[in-house]
Amino acid sequence: MEENVSLMQAQKATAPPTQARIEVQVAVAKVGKYATAESGDTVEIVERPQGGISAVVADGQRSGRSAKAISNIVVRKAISLLAEGVRDGAVARATHDYLHTERAGKVSAELNIASVDLVTRTLVISRNARCPSLLRCDGHFVWLDAPAEAIGVYRNTKPSITELPLAAPLTLVLFTDGVWGAGAPTGSIIDLPAILENVDPHGDGAASAIADAILDAALLLDHGRPHDDATVLVLKLLPSADESGIRRLATRFPI
Amino acid sequence: MEENVSLMQAQKATAPPTQARIEVQVAVAKVGKYATAESGDTVEIVERPQGGISAVVADGQRSGRSAKAISNIVVRKAISLLAEGVRDGAVARATHDYLHTERAGKVSAELNIASVDLVTRTLVISRNARCPSLLRCDGHFVWLDAPAEAIGVYRNTKPSITELPLAAPLTLVLFTDGVWGAGAPTGSIIDLPAILENVDPHGDGAASAIADAILDAALLLDHGRPHDDATVLVLKLLPSADESGIRRLATRFPI
Repeated sequence: MEENVSLMQAQKATAPPTQARIEVQVAVAKVGKYATAESGDTVEIVERPQGGISAVVADGQRSGRSAKAISNIVVRKAISLLAEGVRDGAVARATHDYLHTERAGKVSAELNIASVDLVTRTLVISRNARCPSLLRCDGHFVWLDAPAEAIGVYRNTKPSITELPLAAPLTLVLFTDGVWGAGAPTGSIIDLPAILENVDPHGDGAASAIADAILDAALLLDHGRPHDDATVLVLKLLPSADESGIRRLATRFPI
Repeated sequence: MEENVSLMQAQKATAPPTQARIEVQVAVAKVGKYATAESGDTVEIVERPQGGISAVVADGQRSGRSAKAISNIVVRKAISLLAEGVRDGAVARATHDYLHTERAGKVSAELNIASVDLVTRTLVISRNARCPSLLRCDGHFVWLDAPAEAIGVYRNTKPSITELPLAAPLTLVLFTDGVWGAGAPTGSIIDLPAILENVDPHGDGAASAIADAILDAALLLDHGRPHDDATVLVLKLLPSADESGIRRLATRFPI
Protein backbone atom coordinates (compact mmCIF):
# COMPACT_ATOMS: atom_id res chain seq x y z
CA MET A 1 0.00 0.00 0.00
CA GLU A 2 2.80 2.43 0.78
CA GLU A 3 6.54 3.06 0.48
CA ASN A 4 9.33 1.61 2.64
CA VAL A 5 8.14 -1.93 2.44
CA SER A 6 11.51 -3.52 3.18
CA LEU A 7 10.48 -4.75 6.62
CA MET A 8 7.37 -6.24 5.11
CA GLN A 9 9.32 -8.23 2.55
CA ALA A 10 11.80 -9.35 5.20
CA GLN A 11 8.94 -10.71 7.28
CA LYS A 12 6.82 -12.34 4.65
CA ALA A 13 8.75 -15.59 4.68
CA THR A 14 8.14 -16.17 8.38
CA ALA A 15 4.64 -14.73 8.72
CA PRO A 16 1.97 -17.21 9.85
CA PRO A 17 -1.09 -17.77 7.64
CA THR A 18 -3.09 -14.58 7.61
CA GLN A 19 -6.20 -16.29 8.93
CA ALA A 20 -4.54 -17.18 12.29
CA ARG A 21 -6.58 -15.49 15.00
CA ILE A 22 -4.96 -12.36 16.40
CA GLU A 23 -5.94 -10.00 19.17
CA VAL A 24 -5.12 -6.34 18.57
CA GLN A 25 -4.45 -4.30 21.71
CA VAL A 26 -3.79 -0.58 21.78
CA ALA A 27 -3.04 1.26 25.01
CA VAL A 28 -2.23 4.91 25.59
CA ALA A 29 -0.91 6.63 28.72
CA LYS A 30 -0.31 10.37 28.73
CA VAL A 31 0.47 13.17 31.11
CA GLY A 32 0.98 16.91 30.67
CA LYS A 33 4.14 18.87 31.38
CA TYR A 34 4.44 19.66 35.09
CA ALA A 35 2.40 22.69 36.19
CA THR A 36 0.55 23.13 32.88
CA ALA A 37 -3.23 23.01 32.69
CA GLU A 38 -3.35 20.53 29.83
CA SER A 39 -1.15 18.32 27.71
CA GLY A 40 -0.17 19.63 24.28
CA ASP A 41 -0.31 16.06 23.00
CA THR A 42 -3.51 14.68 21.51
CA VAL A 43 -4.34 11.03 20.81
CA GLU A 44 -7.41 9.61 19.16
CA ILE A 45 -8.27 6.12 18.00
CA VAL A 46 -10.77 5.77 15.18
CA GLU A 47 -12.35 2.83 13.41
CA ARG A 48 -11.38 2.46 9.75
CA PRO A 49 -14.47 2.34 7.54
CA GLN A 50 -13.37 -0.87 5.79
CA GLY A 51 -12.20 -2.58 8.98
CA GLY A 52 -9.46 -2.12 11.55
CA ILE A 53 -8.43 0.96 13.48
CA SER A 54 -6.09 3.90 13.26
CA ALA A 55 -4.39 5.58 16.21
CA VAL A 56 -3.21 9.15 15.75
CA VAL A 57 -0.67 10.79 18.09
CA ALA A 58 0.18 14.48 17.66
CA ASP A 59 2.58 16.62 19.67
CA GLY A 60 1.94 20.33 19.16
CA GLN A 61 4.85 22.78 19.17
CA ARG A 62 5.68 24.06 22.70
CA SER A 63 3.29 23.15 25.55
CA GLY A 64 0.06 24.20 27.24
CA ARG A 65 -3.00 25.63 25.53
CA SER A 66 -1.33 26.76 22.29
CA ALA A 67 0.23 23.32 21.81
CA LYS A 68 -3.10 21.65 22.60
CA ALA A 69 -4.89 23.80 20.02
CA ILE A 70 -2.36 22.74 17.38
CA SER A 71 -2.34 19.02 18.17
CA ASN A 72 -6.12 19.12 18.37
CA ILE A 73 -6.65 20.50 14.85
CA VAL A 74 -3.98 18.14 13.50
CA VAL A 75 -5.60 15.05 15.01
CA ARG A 76 -9.10 16.22 14.07
CA LYS A 77 -8.06 16.60 10.43
CA ALA A 78 -6.24 13.25 10.41
CA ILE A 79 -9.08 11.24 11.98
CA SER A 80 -11.70 12.81 9.77
CA LEU A 81 -9.72 11.79 6.68
CA LEU A 82 -9.01 8.30 8.06
CA ALA A 83 -12.69 7.83 8.88
CA GLU A 84 -13.50 8.65 5.25
CA GLY A 85 -11.21 5.86 4.06
CA VAL A 86 -8.28 8.02 2.90
CA ARG A 87 -5.00 6.01 2.85
CA ASP A 88 -2.52 6.75 5.63
CA GLY A 89 0.24 8.32 3.52
CA ALA A 90 -2.26 10.71 1.97
CA VAL A 91 -3.68 11.53 5.41
CA ALA A 92 -0.23 12.55 6.70
CA ARG A 93 0.43 14.67 3.59
CA ALA A 94 -3.01 16.29 3.66
CA THR A 95 -2.74 17.03 7.39
CA HIS A 96 0.64 18.66 6.79
CA ASP A 97 -0.73 20.75 3.93
CA TYR A 98 -3.69 21.78 6.06
CA LEU A 99 -1.56 22.88 9.02
CA HIS A 100 0.93 24.59 6.70
CA THR A 101 -1.86 26.54 5.02
CA GLU A 102 -3.85 27.27 8.18
CA ARG A 103 -0.87 28.58 10.16
CA ALA A 104 1.18 29.95 7.23
CA GLY A 105 4.11 27.57 7.88
CA LYS A 106 4.76 29.10 11.31
CA VAL A 107 3.67 26.22 13.50
CA SER A 108 4.89 22.63 13.65
CA ALA A 109 3.54 19.40 15.05
CA GLU A 110 4.87 15.89 15.24
CA LEU A 111 2.41 13.36 13.89
CA ASN A 112 2.43 9.58 14.20
CA ILE A 113 -0.27 7.35 12.75
CA ALA A 114 -0.47 3.61 13.40
CA SER A 115 -3.11 1.66 11.51
CA VAL A 116 -4.30 -1.90 11.61
CA ASP A 117 -5.63 -2.15 8.07
CA LEU A 118 -7.88 -5.16 7.56
CA VAL A 119 -8.12 -4.63 3.80
CA THR A 120 -4.38 -4.98 3.18
CA ARG A 121 -3.96 -6.99 6.42
CA THR A 122 -0.99 -4.85 7.32
CA LEU A 123 0.18 -2.63 10.15
CA VAL A 124 1.00 0.78 8.68
CA ILE A 125 3.13 3.22 10.68
CA SER A 126 3.44 6.80 9.38
CA ARG A 127 5.96 9.00 11.17
CA ASN A 128 6.42 12.75 10.94
CA ALA A 129 8.53 13.08 14.07
CA ARG A 130 12.08 13.57 15.20
CA CYS A 131 11.88 10.95 17.92
CA PRO A 132 11.91 7.34 16.70
CA SER A 133 9.43 4.54 17.31
CA LEU A 134 10.29 1.09 18.57
CA LEU A 135 9.16 -2.17 17.06
CA ARG A 136 9.59 -5.59 18.63
CA CYS A 137 8.92 -8.60 16.45
CA ASP A 138 10.36 -12.09 16.27
CA GLY A 139 12.15 -11.34 19.55
CA HIS A 140 14.16 -8.49 18.00
CA PHE A 141 13.98 -4.76 18.56
CA VAL A 142 13.95 -2.51 15.49
CA TRP A 143 14.10 1.28 15.74
CA LEU A 144 11.98 3.14 13.22
CA ASP A 145 14.23 6.18 13.00
CA ALA A 146 14.33 7.18 9.35
CA PRO A 147 14.56 10.99 9.23
CA ALA A 148 11.03 12.40 9.12
CA GLU A 149 10.23 16.08 9.41
CA ALA A 150 7.53 17.41 11.70
CA ILE A 151 4.53 18.68 9.75
CA GLY A 152 3.49 22.29 9.23
CA VAL A 153 6.69 24.18 8.44
CA TYR A 154 8.36 23.11 5.19
CA ARG A 155 6.89 22.49 1.78
CA ASN A 156 5.92 19.02 0.64
CA THR A 157 6.73 17.28 3.91
CA LYS A 158 6.25 13.52 3.57
CA PRO A 159 5.81 10.82 6.20
CA SER A 160 8.25 7.97 6.72
CA ILE A 161 6.11 4.88 6.30
CA THR A 162 6.68 1.32 7.48
CA GLU A 163 4.30 -1.45 6.55
CA LEU A 164 4.28 -4.93 8.06
CA PRO A 165 1.99 -7.94 7.70
CA LEU A 166 -0.41 -8.44 10.61
CA ALA A 167 1.38 -11.26 12.41
CA ALA A 168 1.60 -12.00 16.14
CA PRO A 169 3.49 -11.47 18.33
CA LEU A 170 4.40 -7.88 17.57
CA THR A 171 4.78 -4.80 19.77
CA LEU A 172 4.93 -1.23 18.48
CA VAL A 173 5.81 1.61 20.85
CA LEU A 174 5.08 5.18 19.69
CA PHE A 175 5.87 8.10 21.96
CA THR A 176 6.35 11.84 22.05
CA ASP A 177 9.35 13.99 23.02
CA GLY A 178 8.38 14.03 26.69
CA VAL A 179 8.99 10.29 26.93
CA TRP A 180 12.01 10.22 24.63
CA GLY A 181 13.76 13.11 26.38
CA ALA A 182 12.72 12.26 29.97
CA GLY A 183 15.44 13.00 32.50
CA ALA A 184 17.80 14.45 29.89
CA PRO A 185 18.34 18.14 29.03
CA THR A 186 19.23 17.03 25.49
CA GLY A 187 19.16 13.64 23.79
CA SER A 188 17.62 10.55 25.32
CA ILE A 189 18.51 8.31 28.25
CA ILE A 190 15.35 6.25 28.66
CA ASP A 191 16.08 2.58 27.89
CA LEU A 192 12.90 1.40 26.21
CA PRO A 193 14.10 -2.09 25.17
CA ALA A 194 15.14 -2.74 28.80
CA ILE A 195 11.70 -1.65 30.03
CA LEU A 196 9.99 -3.95 27.54
CA GLU A 197 12.27 -6.89 28.42
CA ASN A 198 11.50 -6.29 32.07
CA VAL A 199 7.73 -5.76 32.02
CA ASP A 200 6.99 -8.10 29.12
CA PRO A 201 9.77 -10.75 29.07
CA HIS A 202 7.91 -13.20 26.85
CA GLY A 203 6.24 -10.66 24.56
CA ASP A 204 2.77 -11.82 25.57
CA GLY A 205 1.95 -9.13 28.16
CA ALA A 206 -0.90 -6.62 27.92
CA ALA A 207 -0.35 -3.39 25.96
CA SER A 208 -1.71 -1.36 28.89
CA ALA A 209 0.88 -2.75 31.33
CA ILE A 210 3.67 -1.78 28.92
CA ALA A 211 2.31 1.72 28.31
CA ASP A 212 1.98 2.28 32.07
CA ALA A 213 5.52 0.99 32.73
CA ILE A 214 7.03 3.26 30.09
CA LEU A 215 5.19 6.36 31.30
CA ASP A 216 6.13 5.50 34.90
CA ALA A 217 9.81 5.19 33.89
CA ALA A 218 9.68 8.55 32.09
CA LEU A 219 8.06 10.20 35.14
CA LEU A 220 10.71 8.67 37.40
CA LEU A 221 13.50 10.07 35.21
CA ASP A 222 11.84 13.49 35.50
CA HIS A 223 11.44 13.08 39.30
CA GLY A 224 7.64 13.10 38.98
CA ARG A 225 7.64 16.53 37.29
CA PRO A 226 7.54 15.91 33.54
CA HIS A 227 9.55 18.59 31.72
CA ASP A 228 7.43 18.15 28.59
CA ASP A 229 4.07 16.65 27.61
CA ALA A 230 4.61 12.89 27.57
CA THR A 231 2.54 10.34 25.67
CA VAL A 232 3.15 6.68 24.95
CA LEU A 233 1.08 4.42 22.72
CA VAL A 234 1.63 0.67 22.64
CA LEU A 235 0.09 -1.46 19.92
CA LYS A 236 0.30 -5.21 20.28
CA LEU A 237 -0.64 -8.11 18.06
CA LEU A 238 -1.06 -11.25 20.14
CA PRO A 239 -2.02 -14.80 19.19
CA SER A 240 -5.55 -15.36 20.46
CA ALA A 241 -7.84 -18.28 21.07
CA ASP A 242 -10.83 -16.01 21.75
CA GLU A 243 -13.79 -16.94 19.56
CA SER A 244 -16.26 -14.51 21.13
CA GLY A 245 -15.64 -11.63 18.72
CA ILE A 246 -16.10 -9.14 21.58
CA ARG A 247 -14.47 -5.72 21.08
CA ARG A 248 -13.54 -3.60 24.08
CA LEU A 249 -12.64 0.03 24.60
CA ALA A 250 -11.91 1.82 27.86
CA THR A 251 -10.64 5.19 28.95
CA ARG A 252 -10.07 6.82 32.31
CA PHE A 253 -8.78 10.19 33.38
CA PRO A 254 -9.00 12.58 36.32
CA ILE A 255 -10.92 15.85 36.13
CA MET B 1 -26.83 24.14 28.54
CA GLU B 2 -29.77 22.04 27.34
CA GLU B 3 -33.38 21.05 27.96
CA ASN B 4 -34.70 18.52 30.52
CA VAL B 5 -32.73 19.86 33.44
CA SER B 6 -35.01 18.48 36.13
CA LEU B 7 -32.53 15.84 37.30
CA MET B 8 -29.84 18.46 37.49
CA GLN B 9 -31.91 20.69 39.71
CA ALA B 10 -32.93 17.77 41.89
CA GLN B 11 -29.27 16.93 42.42
CA LYS B 12 -27.80 20.34 42.95
CA ALA B 13 -28.59 20.42 46.66
CA THR B 14 -26.58 17.29 47.39
CA ALA B 15 -23.76 17.69 44.86
CA PRO B 16 -20.28 17.95 46.37
CA PRO B 17 -18.14 21.01 45.61
CA THR B 18 -17.30 20.96 41.91
CA GLN B 19 -13.56 20.98 42.59
CA ALA B 20 -13.57 17.58 44.36
CA ARG B 21 -11.28 15.29 42.36
CA ILE B 22 -13.15 12.84 40.15
CA GLU B 23 -12.01 10.02 37.90
CA VAL B 24 -13.97 9.55 34.71
CA GLN B 25 -14.09 6.01 33.37
CA VAL B 26 -15.72 4.95 30.14
CA ALA B 27 -15.82 1.32 29.03
CA VAL B 28 -17.40 -0.23 25.96
CA ALA B 29 -18.00 -3.89 25.16
CA LYS B 30 -19.63 -4.89 21.88
CA VAL B 31 -20.31 -7.93 19.78
CA GLY B 32 -21.98 -8.47 16.42
CA LYS B 33 -25.12 -10.48 15.75
CA TYR B 34 -24.38 -14.19 15.51
CA ALA B 35 -23.04 -15.27 12.11
CA THR B 36 -22.66 -11.76 10.70
CA ALA B 37 -19.30 -10.46 9.50
CA GLU B 38 -19.47 -7.24 11.46
CA SER B 39 -21.52 -5.40 14.06
CA GLY B 40 -23.93 -2.77 12.78
CA ASP B 41 -23.24 -0.77 15.93
CA THR B 42 -20.48 1.85 15.96
CA VAL B 43 -18.93 3.52 19.01
CA GLU B 44 -16.33 6.27 19.09
CA ILE B 45 -14.96 8.35 21.94
CA VAL B 46 -13.60 11.78 21.10
CA GLU B 47 -11.94 14.51 23.12
CA ARG B 48 -13.96 17.73 23.41
CA PRO B 49 -11.92 20.71 22.22
CA GLN B 50 -12.59 22.70 25.40
CA GLY B 51 -12.04 19.76 27.74
CA GLY B 52 -13.75 16.48 28.52
CA ILE B 53 -14.88 13.71 26.22
CA SER B 54 -17.89 12.60 24.24
CA ALA B 55 -18.88 9.00 23.58
CA VAL B 56 -21.13 8.31 20.60
CA VAL B 57 -23.06 5.05 20.19
CA ALA B 58 -25.03 4.41 17.00
CA ASP B 59 -27.10 1.40 16.03
CA GLY B 60 -27.78 1.26 12.31
CA GLN B 61 -31.09 -0.11 11.02
CA ARG B 62 -31.00 -3.90 10.48
CA SER B 63 -27.63 -5.70 10.82
CA GLY B 64 -24.49 -6.58 8.92
CA ARG B 65 -22.76 -4.40 6.35
CA SER B 66 -25.66 -2.11 5.53
CA ALA B 67 -26.22 -1.36 9.22
CA LYS B 68 -22.50 -0.78 9.73
CA ALA B 69 -22.39 1.69 6.83
CA ILE B 70 -25.26 3.65 8.39
CA SER B 71 -23.93 3.69 11.95
CA ASN B 72 -20.50 4.59 10.59
CA ILE B 73 -21.63 7.73 8.75
CA VAL B 74 -23.82 8.71 11.70
CA VAL B 75 -20.96 8.44 14.20
CA ARG B 76 -18.48 10.08 11.80
CA LYS B 77 -20.77 13.09 11.41
CA ALA B 78 -21.43 13.32 15.15
CA ILE B 79 -17.77 13.11 16.23
CA SER B 80 -16.63 15.59 13.63
CA LEU B 81 -19.19 18.11 14.92
CA LEU B 82 -18.34 17.38 18.58
CA ALA B 83 -14.62 17.78 17.84
CA GLU B 84 -15.40 21.22 16.41
CA GLY B 85 -17.06 22.25 19.66
CA VAL B 86 -20.68 22.02 18.53
CA ARG B 87 -23.04 21.53 21.53
CA ASP B 88 -24.52 18.08 21.98
CA GLY B 89 -28.16 18.92 21.26
CA ALA B 90 -27.15 20.57 17.99
CA VAL B 91 -24.95 17.58 17.11
CA ALA B 92 -27.87 15.17 17.48
CA ARG B 93 -30.14 17.43 15.40
CA ALA B 94 -27.51 18.01 12.70
CA THR B 95 -26.69 14.30 12.51
CA HIS B 96 -30.40 13.53 12.07
CA ASP B 97 -30.75 16.16 9.35
CA TYR B 98 -27.67 14.80 7.61
CA LEU B 99 -28.89 11.18 7.62
CA HIS B 100 -32.40 12.26 6.64
CA THR B 101 -31.06 14.23 3.67
CA GLU B 102 -28.39 11.70 2.66
CA ARG B 103 -30.76 8.70 2.66
CA ALA B 104 -33.98 10.56 1.78
CA GLY B 105 -35.68 9.62 5.06
CA LYS B 106 -35.55 5.90 4.23
CA VAL B 107 -33.00 4.79 6.79
CA SER B 108 -32.98 5.06 10.57
CA ALA B 109 -30.37 4.82 13.28
CA GLU B 110 -30.47 5.00 17.04
CA LEU B 111 -28.01 7.52 18.40
CA ASN B 112 -26.83 8.02 21.97
CA ILE B 113 -24.27 10.65 22.97
CA ALA B 114 -22.79 10.90 26.46
CA SER B 115 -20.51 13.86 27.17
CA VAL B 116 -18.38 14.87 30.10
CA ASP B 117 -18.35 18.62 29.49
CA LEU B 118 -15.65 20.38 31.50
CA VAL B 119 -16.88 23.85 30.50
CA THR B 120 -20.33 23.42 32.05
CA ARG B 121 -19.02 20.69 34.42
CA THR B 122 -21.98 18.53 33.52
CA LEU B 123 -22.70 15.09 32.16
CA VAL B 124 -24.91 15.49 29.10
CA ILE B 125 -26.83 12.48 27.76
CA SER B 126 -28.58 12.84 24.40
CA ARG B 127 -30.85 9.97 23.41
CA ASN B 128 -32.42 9.24 20.04
CA ALA B 129 -33.31 5.65 20.79
CA ARG B 130 -36.25 3.47 21.64
CA CYS B 131 -34.40 1.56 24.33
CA PRO B 132 -33.79 3.43 27.57
CA SER B 133 -30.55 4.19 29.39
CA LEU B 134 -29.90 3.51 33.06
CA LEU B 135 -28.47 5.94 35.56
CA ARG B 136 -27.33 5.08 39.06
CA CYS B 137 -26.60 7.93 41.41
CA ASP B 138 -26.99 8.44 45.16
CA GLY B 139 -27.66 4.70 45.40
CA HIS B 140 -30.80 4.95 43.25
CA PHE B 141 -31.52 3.70 39.77
CA VAL B 142 -33.19 6.09 37.33
CA TRP B 143 -34.33 5.01 33.87
CA LEU B 144 -33.84 7.56 31.13
CA ASP B 145 -36.79 6.46 29.06
CA ALA B 146 -38.42 9.63 27.77
CA PRO B 147 -39.78 8.87 24.27
CA ALA B 148 -37.07 9.69 21.73
CA GLU B 149 -37.33 8.85 18.05
CA ALA B 150 -34.50 7.21 16.15
CA ILE B 151 -32.86 9.64 13.72
CA GLY B 152 -33.14 9.66 9.94
CA VAL B 153 -36.83 9.06 9.17
CA TYR B 154 -39.11 11.83 10.41
CA ARG B 155 -38.82 15.60 10.10
CA ASN B 156 -37.32 17.67 12.91
CA THR B 157 -36.42 14.75 15.16
CA LYS B 158 -35.03 16.01 18.47
CA PRO B 159 -32.96 14.25 21.12
CA SER B 160 -34.13 13.68 24.67
CA ILE B 161 -31.48 15.36 26.78
CA THR B 162 -30.56 14.84 30.42
CA GLU B 163 -27.95 17.00 32.08
CA LEU B 164 -26.42 16.34 35.49
CA PRO B 165 -23.63 17.98 37.48
CA LEU B 166 -20.34 16.07 37.43
CA ALA B 167 -20.49 14.48 40.87
CA ALA B 168 -19.20 11.10 42.03
CA PRO B 169 -20.29 8.39 42.42
CA LEU B 170 -22.40 8.06 39.30
CA THR B 171 -22.87 5.24 36.80
CA LEU B 172 -24.47 5.63 33.38
CA VAL B 173 -25.27 2.57 31.28
CA LEU B 174 -26.04 3.09 27.59
CA PHE B 175 -26.81 0.13 25.36
CA THR B 176 -28.28 -0.89 22.06
CA ASP B 177 -31.23 -3.14 21.17
CA GLY B 178 -29.11 -6.28 21.21
CA VAL B 179 -28.53 -5.88 24.94
CA TRP B 180 -31.99 -4.61 25.77
CA GLY B 181 -33.78 -7.36 23.86
CA ALA B 182 -31.38 -10.21 24.69
CA GLY B 183 -33.16 -13.52 25.20
CA ALA B 184 -36.57 -12.08 24.36
CA PRO B 185 -38.42 -12.24 21.01
CA THR B 186 -40.10 -8.93 21.98
CA GLY B 187 -39.66 -6.61 24.94
CA SER B 188 -36.87 -6.93 27.46
CA ILE B 189 -36.02 -9.45 30.16
CA ILE B 190 -32.44 -8.48 31.06
CA ASP B 191 -32.30 -7.17 34.66
CA LEU B 192 -29.69 -4.44 34.50
CA PRO B 193 -30.12 -3.06 38.04
CA ALA B 194 -29.61 -6.62 39.40
CA ILE B 195 -26.43 -7.01 37.34
CA LEU B 196 -25.09 -3.69 38.65
CA GLU B 197 -25.98 -4.54 42.24
CA ASN B 198 -24.21 -7.85 41.81
CA VAL B 199 -21.01 -6.84 40.02
CA ASP B 200 -20.67 -3.41 41.66
CA PRO B 201 -22.41 -3.60 45.06
CA HIS B 202 -20.76 -0.47 46.48
CA GLY B 203 -20.81 1.60 43.29
CA ASP B 204 -17.02 1.91 43.27
CA GLY B 205 -16.18 -0.84 40.76
CA ALA B 206 -14.46 -0.34 37.43
CA ALA B 207 -16.54 0.63 34.39
CA SER B 208 -14.91 -2.13 32.34
CA ALA B 209 -15.99 -4.86 34.78
CA ILE B 210 -19.59 -3.62 34.58
CA ALA B 211 -19.59 -3.41 30.78
CA ASP B 212 -18.17 -6.94 30.55
CA ALA B 213 -20.73 -8.30 33.04
CA ILE B 214 -23.65 -6.76 31.15
CA LEU B 215 -22.49 -8.03 27.76
CA ASP B 216 -21.85 -11.48 29.26
CA ALA B 217 -25.37 -11.52 30.71
CA ALA B 218 -26.85 -10.53 27.35
CA LEU B 219 -24.84 -13.24 25.59
CA LEU B 220 -26.00 -15.81 28.15
CA LEU B 221 -29.65 -14.86 27.57
CA ASP B 222 -29.04 -15.38 23.84
CA HIS B 223 -27.27 -18.72 24.52
CA GLY B 224 -23.99 -17.32 23.15
CA ARG B 225 -25.56 -16.50 19.77
CA PRO B 226 -26.60 -12.83 19.91
CA HIS B 227 -29.79 -12.31 17.91
CA ASP B 228 -28.84 -8.66 17.24
CA ASP B 229 -25.73 -6.46 17.38
CA ALA B 230 -25.14 -5.78 21.08
CA THR B 231 -23.20 -2.86 22.55
CA VAL B 232 -22.95 -1.59 26.10
CA LEU B 233 -21.21 1.58 27.24
CA VAL B 234 -20.64 2.30 30.92
CA LEU B 235 -19.59 5.76 32.08
CA LYS B 236 -18.56 6.14 35.71
CA LEU B 237 -17.65 9.12 37.84
CA LEU B 238 -15.66 7.98 40.86
CA PRO B 239 -14.10 9.89 43.74
CA SER B 240 -10.36 9.86 43.18
CA ALA B 241 -7.24 10.56 45.19
CA ASP B 242 -5.01 10.32 42.10
CA GLU B 243 -2.84 13.42 41.74
CA SER B 244 -0.80 12.14 38.78
CA GLY B 245 -2.99 13.61 36.05
CA ILE B 246 -2.33 10.54 33.88
CA ARG B 247 -4.94 9.80 31.20
CA ARG B 248 -5.36 6.29 29.86
CA LEU B 249 -7.03 4.75 26.84
CA ALA B 250 -7.08 1.12 25.78
CA THR B 251 -8.82 -0.99 23.19
CA ARG B 252 -8.65 -4.64 22.23
CA PHE B 253 -10.41 -6.71 19.64
CA PRO B 254 -9.90 -9.91 17.66
CA ILE B 255 -9.21 -9.90 13.93
